[in-house]
Amino acid sequence: MASEKQLVAVTCTAPVNIAVIKYWGKRDEDLILPINSSLSVTLHQDQLKTTTTAAISKDFTEDRIWLNGREEDVGQPRLQACLRETYALARVYGVESDLSEVARRGSGSACRSLYGGFVEWQMGERADGKDSIARQVAPESHWPELRVLILVVSAEKKLMGSTAGMQTSVETSSLLRFRAESVVPARMAEMTRCVQERDFQGFGQLTMKDSNQFHATCLDTFPPISYLSDTSRRIVQLVHRFNAHHGQTKVAYTFDAGPNAVVFALDDTVPEFVAAVRQCFPPELNGDKFLKGLPVRPVPLSEELKAALDVDPTPGGVKYIIATQVGPGPQILDDRQAHLLGPDGLPKPAA
Amino acid sequence: MASEKQLVAVTCTAPVNIAVIKYWGKRDEDLILPINSSLSVTLHQDQLKTTTTAAISKDFTEDRIWLNGREEDVGQPRLQACLRETYALARVYGVESDLSEVARRGSGSACRSLYGGFVEWQMGERADGKDSIARQVAPESHWPELRVLILVVSAEKKLMGSTAGMQTSVETSSLLRFRAESVVPARMAEMTRCVQERDFQGFGQLTMKDSNQFHATCLDTFPPISYLSDTSRRIVQLVHRFNAHHGQTKVAYTFDAGPNAVVFALDDTVPEFVAAVRQCFPPELNGDKFLKGLPVRPVPLSEELKAALDVDPTPGGVKYIIATQVGPGPQILDDRQAHLLGPDGLPKPAA
Repeated sequence: MASEKQLVAVTCTAPVNIAVIKYWGKRDEDLILPINSSLSVTLHQDQLKTTTTAAISKDFTEDRIWLNGREEDVGQPRLQACLRETYALARVYGVESDLSEVARRGSGSACRSLYGGFVEWQMGERADGKDSIARQVAPESHWPELRVLILVVSAEKKLMGSTAGMQTSVETSSLLRFRAESVVPARMAEMTRCVQERDFQGFGQLTMKDSNQFHATCLDTFPPISYLSDTSRRIVQLVHRFNAHHGQTKVAYTFDAGPNAVVFALDDTVPEFVAAVRQCFPPELNGDKFLKGLPVRPVPLSEELKAALDVDPTPGGVKYIIATQVGPGPQILDDRQAHLLGPDGLPKPAA
Repeated sequence: MASEKQLVAVTCTAPVNIAVIKYWGKRDEDLILPINSSLSVTLHQDQLKTTTTAAISKDFTEDRIWLNGREEDVGQPRLQACLRETYALARVYGVESDLSEVARRGSGSACRSLYGGFVEWQMGERADGKDSIARQVAPESHWPELRVLILVVSAEKKLMGSTAGMQTSVETSSLLRFRAESVVPARMAEMTRCVQERDFQGFGQLTMKDSNQFHATCLDTFPPISYLSDTSRRIVQLVHRFNAHHGQTKVAYTFDAGPNAVVFALDDTVPEFVAAVRQCFPPELNGDKFLKGLPVRPVPLSEELKAALDVDPTPGGVKYIIATQVGPGPQILDDRQAHLLGPDGLPKPAA
């Protein structure tokens, strides 16, 4: 078909980011402007990524979008906001512009996925949001020993989505307002210093404190929001006992709007901590699929550490672990095979 | 024995109180002075009480104390502080003095058990604590329709005691400081108004908000403190769904330093709410012992409410319910049989 020659497609992958200073609450719902700055770690795309193919053609008569192979309504407001921003960018094609404004309009925290390494999202002050942008604090090569373990926990119940959750928090939690205005600014500066100096003790402690404070403001919301489950709390306890045993902060947890834990550690701590997780949460079925991602050397737990953990094992509490590390920002794929859309502009059948 | 005639004994009972504006954190550890005022409801002694017998005799050569029939060290600081205060009071025997200073030295919140009905503990301003005293806001006869349900939940793990917990919170939680200084004063005034006007909607909502905020400051403590279990959170959800179904606040929860819920409701709401609890937490064994205390008429749940609760039942999550109401302050028992100490000044054998 002649028209197919007109089709231009590009495919790129984007990373997941995990906030260590949390974003919770908007000061402008339409522009997606946050009530405080936040800071995140970009995870490596070898383990977790999103893949997007965009195609344009003179023959297309309408915009269409597929998410995980299923067509979605292209008219929904956030998508429209992104598309408007993208067409505006297209006009200056070839000119460097700030993409974080575009990403922010889709999902606030997504703007932090535009860079690799350690990224801050500055809240900005302007009403139009032009200064509410992402900025790289340090590149992915900055702290090569840093590892990230995602402890996947089964969610027993439907959780409140973050968009609705943070809106209710802004409306009802006086602690959230205080946090945004009086706690976060100093924490942003302190976290930036910890990252720049590769100070794991400081980084880990502040990461845990900020995760706890975010969940505290959720609990102060009315009606209250609880994202942490009993298993999440057992992981918290495990981390604190592991650190107490070693007399220093060797591992640090953070939790987003769900019960899964993300744990930071330096590479030489990972084998012992994974063994501790196996001790507290014995894998229910095939133990060989318990650990995904980067390989982790099996090590035995010392009797001293076993005694220090002092837990009743909870079989199956942690479903599996994904071991990963800090990674780069979005990548454009050269391989034509990578396109998710075929020459007709429609999703390829699943392989 | 001649000496036994010298023995004078008195026995009194004291009530349990449940705070609806929470006390958490001391500004003076020795004098037990709080960082904020608090307000509680005194529970009726027909369901829950403590019984104490004190005996004095010229023949006694030392102070001794038994707690639940077991002898305790009379030298421990808090007990010594109480005894000193009591001997000081004894010197002015017959003169009215403020007992709440004595009680406060033993356990801060105990001073609120000196009165029936609704009681505030004013934080006071003086360094010597002379103005940190309990005061009755309204007597037990003030709000006769008010009922209190204690939902007893099994604690799966050892919890941090409140003395150590609140000390860590004062040292590490910036949200707690903000709460004490900037949130509680207005809440004390509002709660007093709700009690005085018997405004259940306002009373219930503020009770829930203040419980949530107390637990939020526990979570903001480092290391974090979690008193609520998954069952506690299911009770929270049940209460909010029950209220949403009725379009108003008909029941209200509050949680102290443990997973048990205390639920307030007016008498005409109790039967339906108890039926809802049975629906969500089917009694595991003998359903006839599930409800203790005041009788509650069994009623069927409407299909609409069942659907609105939308829960997966958790059998045995709630062990049992104690139904009680607002009650009077401490009582002196006239009955000599009530003495816990025999004519020799030693504990009577258990009946």
